[in-house]
Amino acid sequence: MKFDFMYYNPTKIYFGRNAMDNLAEELSGYGDTVLLAYGKSAIKRIGLYDKVVDILKACGKTIVELEGIKPNPSYAQVMEGARLVRENHVQLILAVGGGSVVDCAKAISVAAYCEEEPWEKYWIREEAVENPIVPVASILTMTGTGSEMNGGSVITNEEQMLKMGRVFPAEVYPRFSILNPEYTYSVPKYQMVSGIYDIFQHLLEQYFSGDDDNTTDYLIEGVLASLIGSARAALRDPEDYEARSNIMWCATLGLNTITGLSKAQDWEVHMIEHQIGAYTDCAHGAGLAITAIPYYKYIWPFGAEKFVRFAKNVWGIDVSSLTQEEAALAGIEKLSDFIKELGLPTTLREVGTTEEMLPLIAESTVLGGGYKQMTPPEILEILKACY
Amino acid sequence: MKFDFMYYNPTKIYFGRNAMDNLAEELSGYGDTVLLAYGKSAIKRIGLYDKVVDILKACGKTIVELEGIKPNPSYAQVMEGARLVRENHVQLILAVGGGSVVDCAKAISVAAYCEEEPWEKYWIREEAVENPIVPVASILTMTGTGSEMNGGSVITNEEQMLKMGRVFPAEVYPRFSILNPEYTYSVPKYQMVSGIYDIFQHLLEQYFSGDDDNTTDYLIEGVLASLIGSARAALRDPEDYEARSNIMWCATLGLNTITGLSKAQDWEVHMIEHQIGAYTDCAHGAGLAITAIPYYKYIWPFGAEKFVRFAKNVWGIDVSSLTQEEAALAGIEKLSDFIKELGLPTTLREVGTTEEMLPLIAESTVLGGGYKQMTPPEILEILKACY
Repeated sequence: MKFDFMYYNPTKIYFGRNAMDNLAEELSGYGDTVLLAYGKSAIKRIGLYDKVVDILKACGKTIVELEGIKPNPSYAQVMEGARLVRENHVQLILAVGGGSVVDCAKAISVAAYCEEEPWEKYWIREEAVENPIVPVASILTMTGTGSEMNGGSVITNEEQMLKMGRVFPAEVYPRFSILNPEYTYSVPKYQMVSGIYDIFQHLLEQYFSGDDDNTTDYLIEGVLASLIGSARAALRDPEDYEARSNIMWCATLGLNTITGLSKAQDWEVHMIEHQIGAYTDCAHGAGLAITAIPYYKYIWPFGAEKFVRFAKNVWGIDVSSLTQEEAALAGIEKLSDFIKELGLPTTLREVGTTEEMLPLIAESTVLGGGYKQMTPPEILEILKACY
Repeated sequence: MKFDFMYYNPTKIYFGRNAMDNLAEELSGYGDTVLLAYGKSAIKRIGLYDKVVDILKACGKTIVELEGIKPNPSYAQVMEGARLVRENHVQLILAVGGGSVVDCAKAISVAAYCEEEPWEKYWIREEAVENPIVPVASILTMTGTGSEMNGGSVITNEEQMLKMGRVFPAEVYPRFSILNPEYTYSVPKYQMVSGIYDIFQHLLEQYFSGDDDNTTDYLIEGVLASLIGSARAALRDPEDYEARSNIMWCATLGLNTITGLSKAQDWEVHMIEHQIGAYTDCAHGAGLAITAIPYYKYIWPFGAEKFVRFAKNVWGIDVSSLTQEEAALAGIEKLSDFIKELGLPTTLREVGTTEEMLPLIAESTVLGGGYKQMTPPEILEILKACY
């Protein structure tokens, strides 16, 4: 583990079929007024809304509602939530939904008592949080973002046409998160596989960097192995509890920072997808799946040993009789096969990207990389290769 | 992940060569008087004592010292520490040393303001902690117990001839732990390999249970793979930083509860070793290594599939042409080879056990098990097999 690191993650996780049984006791640690933040009607359809409201009422809480948080939560909604928090003296923000709702809850938490313009201060200038914050908790219904156990908050400023993410410190992490894999059963299949690939890519972004022998890489290989098997089981039967529970926990592990410790990390596939998302309306996981293959085919020579290891340890390929190039490409091919198995798109065309958009996406992509510092012409090549 | 679980671990970890640079800032969060708890002269020999005292003084702290904490910390020392805490109004207990020192610090933390007899209340009756506690922090110099990131506290009551362990809740965990792998260089080789096997066995105790598909098992396989490689590297060169850093982090991961989530777990090898330790003075890891092989050879038929998986995923054995028995035994054989490679003893005789002790050890062992509920005659068979 070449690089020094700090690890601190104080979110309390309640996981399993009876996780909700802990809500009432947890609520006793917070004040009387709760902001109940959620998205569309999904949580009402599966009966979760009624269940949560019943528990809140039984605990004597006053409920203030913020409904309709979008898949890409808008800054306007954050400011609306912040107003509700101030006006009602809200003492806990309870997010019920997927990562977007949790991201929005964190944003409301820091924005409510911020005396400057929160967008400028926290998402543009990424300043430290000094104003009082309101505790956040979550009840998760979709997996992928890991927002239930980290400080990430991606917000879209619709007026400025800007989507910005930042990571807040541990005080802003959910104090507790309730993870019942059964709540994820009702997610449509396309969103399920998109979420699975999002988890996969989070792990790869952390894996493909560094040349030291690092326990974190072995940990990632373990999580990937679990995720591959459970993804296949969930494709066969979306109500396979073991599979959905493993996927849910892999998602949390994939982005609660433990699978990134002492790693330089990459994240360039996410940066490219980010801009594809800005020009199209594609699902995040789908955009990642499209971009990953040409990206890795391009960068493998700069981190060849790790790509050979990926082929061997993640996909079980016998690399002993292969050249380095054959082995690296065989591993990437297996990843490509897995993406097809998930039923995700493999070209930018399929998600509505036009040829004219490619240079614009390339020019606007934030440049970084794990084994290779990227340039706009290189990004353009990668985009053309998956167009 | 068949069983519901709760995960909550608020210890802040500073890891790496410069981890100590964070001590001063962390100290600013606590009061003026610090109990500096440590063992023998080891930390003075490597210059660590002076370094810590300098930082404490520069931060304006009043230092109260508790020196000479034993490898098996005694209840008398706990009560001495508790008295020092009360008399000096200590506001932080800083443990500098191995797991024993950290265990002792946690014990002092809960005992200082306990109005009943702490031994009876906390170690015998294992009651909840209701009295005020004193925050604990640690600077680690030996790896193995994971005490730096959990609530474990094993204390020996010398008057009563009893060694008892218990796990305290998160409030008693170290608030922060400083882990610099370089501090572990000076540990003698026998203690290093004993510590490595202790880590290994912690992982196996959690692994060998359950028949569900569980992400935690994949995580354990990842940590084991890292540990095996780094153990070999550390045997070749004890000052191989990458190897020692991986071992240190594997130790923390092995017992910070993340590698036990949703697992029934076993721990019978630890229970047997515990009683061997009561009759002899053997190193903990050595006693575990001796007992593990005959134990697993006895229980594998009750969890055969997991033992085949162990052979395949941990040791890379091609099990495709083997019977279940051949595969399971091949995996155990590889474990046995690894123990020999570490240079650990393989018989009870070597650590001073006499034949007369065997029935006494068998009768006094706490009975449990992962795939099989054990009985005293079965324990005796296992002991005879490694005598």
